[in-house]
Amino acid sequence: MTGIDITVFKGSSRGKIVKSTIHKDGLKPDEVLLKITHAGLCGTDLHYKTSDIVLSHEGVGIVQEVGSGVTTFKQGDRAGWGYLHNSCGHCDECLSGNEIFCTERAMYADADTDQGGFASHAIWKAGFLFHIPDAISSSDAAPLMCAGGTVFNAMHLYGMLPTDRVGIIGVGGLGHLAIQFAAKMGCEVVVFSGTERKKEEAINLGASEFYATKDVETLKIGAPIKHLFVTTSQQPEWKCYLNTLAPHAKIYPLTVSAEPLTLPYMQLVNNGITLQGSICPSRGTHVKMLRFAALHGIKPIVQEFPLTEDGIEEAMEKLEKGEVRYRAVLVAEK
Amino acid sequence: MTGIDITVFKGSSRGKIVKSTIHKDGLKPDEVLLKITHAGLCGTDLHYKTSDIVLSHEGVGIVQEVGSGVTTFKQGDRAGWGYLHNSCGHCDECLSGNEIFCTERAMYADADTDQGGFASHAIWKAGFLFHIPDAISSSDAAPLMCAGGTVFNAMHLYGMLPTDRVGIIGVGGLGHLAIQFAAKMGCEVVVFSGTERKKEEAINLGASEFYATKDVETLKIGAPIKHLFVTTSQQPEWKCYLNTLAPHAKIYPLTVSAEPLTLPYMQLVNNGITLQGSICPSRGTHVKMLRFAALHGIKPIVQEFPLTEDGIEEAMEKLEKGEVRYRAVLVAEK
Repeated sequence: MTGIDITVFKGSSRGKIVKSTIHKDGLKPDEVLLKITHAGLCGTDLHYKTSDIVLSHEGVGIVQEVGSGVTTFKQGDRAGWGYLHNSCGHCDECLSGNEIFCTERAMYADADTDQGGFASHAIWKAGFLFHIPDAISSSDAAPLMCAGGTVFNAMHLYGMLPTDRVGIIGVGGLGHLAIQFAAKMGCEVVVFSGTERKKEEAINLGASEFYATKDVETLKIGAPIKHLFVTTSQQPEWKCYLNTLAPHAKIYPLTVSAEPLTLPYMQLVNNGITLQGSICPSRGTHVKMLRFAALHGIKPIVQEFPLTEDGIEEAMEKLEKGEVRYRAVLVAEK
Repeated sequence: MTGIDITVFKGSSRGKIVKSTIHKDGLKPDEVLLKITHAGLCGTDLHYKTSDIVLSHEGVGIVQEVGSGVTTFKQGDRAGWGYLHNSCGHCDECLSGNEIFCTERAMYADADTDQGGFASHAIWKAGFLFHIPDAISSSDAAPLMCAGGTVFNAMHLYGMLPTDRVGIIGVGGLGHLAIQFAAKMGCEVVVFSGTERKKEEAINLGASEFYATKDVETLKIGAPIKHLFVTTSQQPEWKCYLNTLAPHAKIYPLTVSAEPLTLPYMQLVNNGITLQGSICPSRGTHVKMLRFAALHGIKPIVQEFPLTEDGIEEAMEKLEKGEVRYRAVLVAEK
């Protein structure tokens, strides 16, 4: 490859999406060039709308060319990536398969900010790209790269069992995937949402029970919950939910919040509650997530928009208003 | 047994220790009568000084008589008990050896409030008493029944490994035992205390490193900490300590606090931090704690007081002032 001009869509200080072109000289031996076909929009992208970076970390595309040392991808393969672009490969965390915690990790918005999903192409290290299973369409694959990975990671790593009763707060980008993953893992799935509006959809996705929580002071849900996943963009009324938990239950706050986390101290100690910080997956878990989704037909419900300035603006506006059902995917022209 | 008058020391509404006598008719088939020889004083007792209950849940004594169905204790045995007195025996938690989380658990200050360590005798269910290993004196055994059990429980149940670097905040009743347990488990032990005053003692107890934290804005401790045990009566500056933690480290708040727990949200999520509520142990863990302490010569540093109204008042006053080094034990007259 002698060089390529890549069209990219970036945030900007005035909060408008700006289209521009960057030039890449060529591929390093361990790199892969993708032509992007689909890119998911995540709540995190809204936070970076005023930053001069290429947006989207849920990219899926088709391999155009591979560097001289790449053996794991070939031209024509479908591939995707998520939040993590690189890690050192030799620290304790990397050596234990926890490279998401590598202190030299390269992540969305912190590194490689001239590359992203909202673009014509992207160049990434082969080791941080994922093959898309045949059973998953590229449009469905995009939201799995971050939203799917994030909920699966929490459900996979911290001891959730098929025999557990699981709570999911929020039916949105993360929540509607969390319901499916937990149900297919065999769990009894209890869903909490503001109103009854999403009840039928939640049940169709695999929920066993559904509770509308708006203006409800005391949640009465019968048997208590062992693992509680918080997927809403706002932190919930913690005290209210702590009363729904089984002894030594686990709580997973999965979304981004600028507010500090404030919990009733003694309730947590006396009941041996675990508050488990959890982020997007390291690669081993990401691969398992894709396999599990393919095997069980777990698919995001996506709303497609054209991968243009206008399309991105429209998707972002809808996401900000809470109107996306349930994950926006930007689709490139063929 | 035809009946016994038991001398007890209770709290009272005016905050004074009151001596009185209660009568027990006799033993049920599964009960044991102990003559109390030693009873530890815990921070929790201070909270109940104004309650009409027999104080102390760190009791040790000598078996006087056993109920008709008791086979695990005999007259003359040394035995002790902690926070937990009874549980249902048939719920999921009991059946999994987690009876400390039984919803019908009987615990100090909530149940059996006419029995306690500050008394001449106590009658308890045999199944919730522990044999004291020969290697442990009765005076040393008393603080292990709650303080020892509480720190051991957190270190034993939640994945702490001998290869981990462990932090302990506070050198007091719990902290000075936590240092010993962690050191004997093979860990590198980093101790945080307000001033340099307790440095030598902490090192002698097994600390590898010691940091005085008063007026220190940024803690610089070299390699990060994997498990952080908070044993101070006040909650620490969480933000300050979060910066000392390794990725996916665990924090254990072990003491009682009326304040809510407030932590920086994103730091917790981004680093996969676990906040682990942990309480005193179920019986299986309590037994392991006693065996481990006996094997490794782990002993509290105790300050003895006479088991009298005056003795209890004096010990409580010292505890309130933070002057106990490091656990008060009330000793009955021979």
